[in-house]
Amino acid sequence: MTKKITIAIDAMGGENAPKKNIEGLKIFLDNNSINKDFIIHLFGDEKIINEEISKLGISKEFIKVFHTKDIVSDEDTPLTAVKNSKNTSMWNCIDAQINGHADISLSAGNTGVLLVISRMILKTMKEVSKPALAGLWPSEKGMSVVLDLGANIECDEKNLIDFSEMGAALYKSIFPEQKPHIGLLNIGSEEIKGTETLKKAYSKLKQLSNENNFVFNGYIEGNKLMEGKSNVIVTDGFTGNIALKTAEGTAKFITDNLKKSLTENMLTKISLIFSYFSLKKFKSKLDPRKYNGAIFLGLNGPVVKSHGGTDSIGFYHSITLCYKIIKGNLMNQIKSNLSHLDV
Amino acid sequence: MTKKITIAIDAMGGENAPKKNIEGLKIFLDNNSINKDFIIHLFGDEKIINEEISKLGISKEFIKVFHTKDIVSDEDTPLTAVKNSKNTSMWNCIDAQINGHADISLSAGNTGVLLVISRMILKTMKEVSKPALAGLWPSEKGMSVVLDLGANIECDEKNLIDFSEMGAALYKSIFPEQKPHIGLLNIGSEEIKGTETLKKAYSKLKQLSNENNFVFNGYIEGNKLMEGKSNVIVTDGFTGNIALKTAEGTAKFITDNLKKSLTENMLTKISLIFSYFSLKKFKSKLDPRKYNGAIFLGLNGPVVKSHGGTDSIGFYHSITLCYKIIKGNLMNQIKSNLSHLDV
Repeated sequence: MTKKITIAIDAMGGENAPKKNIEGLKIFLDNNSINKDFIIHLFGDEKIINEEISKLGISKEFIKVFHTKDIVSDEDTPLTAVKNSKNTSMWNCIDAQINGHADISLSAGNTGVLLVISRMILKTMKEVSKPALAGLWPSEKGMSVVLDLGANIECDEKNLIDFSEMGAALYKSIFPEQKPHIGLLNIGSEEIKGTETLKKAYSKLKQLSNENNFVFNGYIEGNKLMEGKSNVIVTDGFTGNIALKTAEGTAKFITDNLKKSLTENMLTKISLIFSYFSLKKFKSKLDPRKYNGAIFLGLNGPVVKSHGGTDSIGFYHSITLCYKIIKGNLMNQIKSNLSHLDV
Repeated sequence: MTKKITIAIDAMGGENAPKKNIEGLKIFLDNNSINKDFIIHLFGDEKIINEEISKLGISKEFIKVFHTKDIVSDEDTPLTAVKNSKNTSMWNCIDAQINGHADISLSAGNTGVLLVISRMILKTMKEVSKPALAGLWPSEKGMSVVLDLGANIECDEKNLIDFSEMGAALYKSIFPEQKPHIGLLNIGSEEIKGTETLKKAYSKLKQLSNENNFVFNGYIEGNKLMEGKSNVIVTDGFTGNIALKTAEGTAKFITDNLKKSLTENMLTKISLIFSYFSLKKFKSKLDPRKYNGAIFLGLNGPVVKSHGGTDSIGFYHSITLCYKIIKGNLMNQIKSNLSHLDV
């Protein structure tokens, strides 16, 4: 028998924790128990967690609960959290990769603290100069990976190359059937456009481009992000964060206005009867819960950050993402990709 | 009688020129001739322009045509264009602000060439270190101004302060009834977030904030861009360009998918009968033609760039923008705002 995939979950992180976390876990178990190739380690208040588990009638076949006394709150800063953190569910959830043989850690708690604790415990890989936060992004062809989303506000060309190798590895681990195609985010698609850092990264990526590792598509502009021709979008953390949030804001603006239009009078309400199923499919395709989970790459172990405000379905998608990442052998993919850089 | 607003238009710039340009002008005249406070100077092939004018039955009361022999093409680079440009419609349209007493110039031609020619002819204002490209952006409360959209890929704090003063002046000239509220685009709203440049700009803008000039709202994140609480969004040209294009791409992705959903079967097509007018209103609110026209600020005269691919309605909106800008006394507003910086 091969080793089981072990996912460490901070049961106490995020709004409505641990209720939504355990509810999300139930959906995951309902969909994946048949595989019998994983085990979930839950960190948090044992009593409350066990109450939730029995309330939902979850079998404990695939679950182990580890009691922790404290919780990292939204008000904690990295400084306060690190001072009192060794007993928190978040700390122990990450630490499980060192001491408890977990393969990956998942939390919906305080982002700033999570990034700092993760770096402290897991340490940056020796092959990488800076870790990066990667996210999933909907596209015409399915899903893309975008990184960095805000871990590093200033990046040099070496960082962008590392992000490309790690992003390609992540893409391969989540979508083993697909090939990663890298696009470097810029304000024009011509080779002469952009900052000096981008130009240097461009010429190095052109060299590195190959069928086994990743194909480099060149520069990509913001309006092509969702076309899907490039499925790994590489940028610095400042730009990536602005692009991600601008896309979120735009999507909200449009769907809010659409909702208003389609409910403004009796006629439009009648129209909804006829378009109900199609609009539901449309909504489902854009459902942000499907893309829930940012992946912290470049440490000696992967950490997934779920949105704090998501619900049980969003949290379920994050657990699924953890499962896929480990099944797809992320850490080996990253090491293999980064080894190309030594040549 | 006060001096007439004189708008110089490059009749030959953009796709389907001069047809769409003159058609756009007709819509403008139909809506504004009653004011009798403007004159349009058209630059381009006199014969073709006059043919279009008579085909559309436009009165020449508010129009003067200036013959020019050459056209800047999409294939021209700033270098080739400058070499042969003194006879082009674009060159003469800008030059009209020096020699022809025009107050503003409008072109839908080659953007790169337009920016270079404009700087050459009009020169950067002595109070400003770098000119900026500003655009209009839809918001929950109406319209916002965003700058820089790509004229300067690297900016220091002085540039960002200049952009704030010029953006506020532009906002006041277009929306004289409203007050400019500045938001500095960043990856978080807390004062400690962001690059050193942003932090320095933040503290200076906080000092400059006042009821007469502009109110500084602090940092704004990408997802709040369209809320409208800040109506002048300030950023460097790299970030602004990425944000603008990402918003465009996201809007296209969503509306394409919505269109697909609402036409996919008989039922949804029936639904369209009931929602037709509401969806039309929805579409109109997001119509990019309403926001057509980027304003080049910081030269000794304003230049407006229309999208090359827009149609007559989009071009009409650009002419209206030019008219409003001059009626709102943009250049004096800019000078008055920049004079605050000397104190």
